Amino acid sequence: MALAEPLTLYAAKVCPFAHRVELALAESGLKKDKDFTRYEIDLQNKPEWYEPKVNAAGKVPAIAYGGPKVPGDQPSPDSTKLTESLVLIEFVADLVPNSSLLPSSPVLRAKTRFFIDAFSTQFMPPSFAFISGKGPSDGLLNAIEQLQNLMAPSGFVIGDGKEFTTADAAIIPFFARMEVGLKNDSGGFEEGEGTKAWEALMTEGRFARWRKYWADVKARESFKDTFDEVKYCFEIYLNPRVNHSSS
Amino acid sequence: MALAEPLTLYAAKVCPFAHRVELALAESGLKKDKDFTRYEIDLQNKPEWYEPKVNAAGKVPAIAYGGPKVPGDQPSPDSTKLTESLVLIEFVADLVPNSSLLPSSPVLRAKTRFFIDAFSTQFMPPSFAFISGKGPSDGLLNAIEQLQNLMAPSGFVIGDGKEFTTADAAIIPFFARMEVGLKNDSGGFEEGEGTKAWEALMTEGRFARWRKYWADVKARESFKDTFDEVKYCFEIYLNPRVNHSSS
Ligand SMILES: N[C@@H](CCC(=O)N[C@@H](CS)C(=O)NCC(=O)O)C(=O)O
Ligand SMILES: N[C@@H](CCC(=O)N[C@@H](CS)C(=O)NCC(=O)O)C(=O)O
Repeated sequence: MALAEPLTLYAAKVCPFAHRVELALAESGLKKDKDFTRYEIDLQNKPEWYEPKVNAAGKVPAIAYGGPKVPGDQPSPDSTKLTESLVLIEFVADLVPNSSLLPSSPVLRAKTRFFIDAFSTQFMPPSFAFISGKGPSDGLLNAIEQLQNLMAPSGFVIGDGKEFTTADAAIIPFFARMEVGLKNDSGGFEEGEGTKAWEALMTEGRFARWRKYWADVKARESFKDTFDEVKYCFEIYLNPRVNHSSS
Repeated sequence: MALAEPLTLYAAKVCPFAHRVELALAESGLKKDKDFTRYEIDLQNKPEWYEPKVNAAGKVPAIAYGGPKVPGDQPSPDSTKLTESLVLIEFVADLVPNSSLLPSSPVLRAKTRFFIDAFSTQFMPPSFAFISGKGPSDGLLNAIEQLQNLMAPSGFVIGDGKEFTTADAAIIPFFARMEVGLKNDSGGFEEGEGTKAWEALMTEGRFARWRKYWADVKARESFKDTFDEVKYCFEIYLNPRVNHSSS
């Protein structure tokens, strides 16, 4: 399916919020370079046109939609600029209503949005707290255990688990970065706490549902096409311009 | 338009989050008592069936949708229970897709959701801070000034201002309670600070757009049908069971 208007996504590989939108686009059936353009923003060295012409808040992700077809670094004043990752994944779902991104049943749509709200309010704060050394690993682990109760018994998050929805797009980028941080024991926590938490996730029975979910996700094309673990590690850990002390 | 299934809204007149859903239902074209049931929950004295049978989090609003037609105080295990006000106003929009609650254009839908996000992140924290005596009135006033920049030049919030959307439903309940608190100089702020802030809103040129918006809203049937200022004051200030020190 082709879009009625040109669409450019401004993103940064390092950013989980931008990754949400990349996943939604990848799962929408739209094709990169054919149906939409992706433009990488170097957050350490933002192009000077980005804030005035795309997002005054200076953040990725942003979408420019409509107006003439222009190169990503020459955004047109005639396109609409949209921001906020959760707004953007619903926007992609609205642009491609026959994709699986939002179920057609109002009840399942509500469950999709409720799941994202639960993730934002119940998983994100304790997980950021642990990773930045301000909270216990139990906060993160218990939040994952709780989230499982809202997930389909197998497959993706919503309904019968057969379809990839915005709920999956919203959470996967954070699990991906969590895996890298924990496995490499890299974060504000005490030495060894990261690998210990990862070990728990990989072995304890209470995380079986999450583990299966995560294995399924990692095998999925949309994930492999949008997340490169080695490159992510490089950006985060080896790029001399990145401030290693902030997440 | 009739719904395919029975719908019961659990709400409390005092609660701005529940009020959002009441407004969305009122503007959807669905008729109370005919198309859906409203059940008042006394938050000071919650019925003991509410948490186990409707919302384990013990909060309003909640919607029970589907299952057999039952009285509000006898919720059926066969209905789906949905919560979170922002999820519920989208649910109402999805149930009545030909209502004005969400525009049909994907761009305007995104702007509707972006506006609600801006309200949640930029208006709610400074306004709660002022009302609870933990922040300056300028925080609240500047946030209102900023919000105006995201509003249609006249009428309702989104697009050409002609249609009432979920963006209006999301914000009106907070302005209504703000008016009562400021006008009556009732809040955690120093004596006189509430009436002074209200005076500023009612007279200063920089709030002209908001003032017109608020006058339009107060004249609207859906608002008059869902908010009773006198009754609200009674609940908040005169009900001996209400703890006056918490908002
Ligand atoms: N609430 C925003 C958050 C976006 C965000 O925080 N993006 C970060 C990168 S992950 C950013 O662009 N920060 C600006 C900067 O680093 O200058 C969303 O959900 O889109
Ligand atoms: N995030 C929830 C907040 C709902 C909420 O906080 N409701 C309050 C009343 S305004 C409540 O029911 N509190 C429970 C209680 O008072 O026991 C939503 O948006 O629906």
